[in-house]
Amino acid sequence: MQGEPELCVLRLGHRPGRDDRMTTHVGLTARALGADRVLFPDNASQSVETVRDITERFGGPFEVEQSDAQRATIRNWEGLVVHLTMYGERIQDVEDDIRAVHAEEPMLVVVGGEKVPFEVYDHADWNVGVTNQPHSEVAGLAVFLDRLHDGRELDREWEGGDRRVVPTETGKQVVDPEEFEGDEE
Amino acid sequence: MQGEPELCVLRLGHRPGRDDRMTTHVGLTARALGADRVLFPDNASQSVETVRDITERFGGPFEVEQSDAQRATIRNWEGLVVHLTMYGERIQDVEDDIRAVHAEEPMLVVVGGEKVPFEVYDHADWNVGVTNQPHSEVAGLAVFLDRLHDGRELDREWEGGDRRVVPTETGKQVVDPEEFEGDEE
Repeated sequence: MQGEPELCVLRLGHRPGRDDRMTTHVGLTARALGADRVLFPDNASQSVETVRDITERFGGPFEVEQSDAQRATIRNWEGLVVHLTMYGERIQDVEDDIRAVHAEEPMLVVVGGEKVPFEVYDHADWNVGVTNQPHSEVAGLAVFLDRLHDGRELDREWEGGDRRVVPTETGKQVVDPEEFEGDEE
Repeated sequence: MQGEPELCVLRLGHRPGRDDRMTTHVGLTARALGADRVLFPDNASQSVETVRDITERFGGPFEVEQSDAQRATIRNWEGLVVHLTMYGERIQDVEDDIRAVHAEEPMLVVVGGEKVPFEVYDHADWNVGVTNQPHSEVAGLAVFLDRLHDGRELDREWEGGDRRVVPTETGKQVVDPEEFEGDEE
């Protein structure tokens, strides 16, 4: 988040068509829950477009990038690398240590699709399991980010965009950002 | 979770093909993060199969059911109904109240796909937003369940199944359940 060392989410691997929605949801979850940037594979152009479109409409800052050299990005990352995997150490055992290191260093969070190569497990500073059960890379990322930030990401403010959703008991309320900020005073 | 009032996740709406993976991930996330049961629409047979298969292999208890009368299930639920939506009240503002009611009553958590009918907003005891940003119903469900349980779901034990993943720093370790339980003593 702003004013803190960078937090970047890397979506490793993508099968166009089959993975489009999962990859998009990884990007949108990263944006909504306090990451600064998402790195998509170069064949995930549709997800890039969707996440950029949401950022334009609902605000940022949030960056979306594409790369054809994801493994090199992981190898050369200057800072902390965390790989989310159901085979990893239990998040409840390692989250405090990760939070402490990230207070000083940029962090790359690697979210794999199918068949993550062993070098990623080997290179990561932490392999972390949000449960050791098979579920969803999107769910794992969401719980990881919420715990990492101790919930602070839920209070972040957004810049730009042309709409804000106002929390409401029943129904839907969407307003202009200027109106929304007026309401808060 | 076991020994507590029932927690059931209802996946509302499903477009076969397009939604298969999202619906499956809703079910797997419900299972992994402490729900007792998932209710899928009657056209989501592929997701039913996948979640049942994972439960057979990795353990339970966890129930998977199909229904052609989801709106009636919501209307007639005897207990608390929570609907997750980006338009709802902020989770950080309502989670304590929801947790307190659920300590006494079964809870139905409704996770919508596209175009949730207004009657669902109207019938829910709480409409809850995990952020008021567009992201992922899987991510929202995951954060909701983790917060509801105060993280206790990460320590739950599994019965049955033919394998357990052992948390490990690097690589993958999968063992027979009897061996796993032996390790814990």
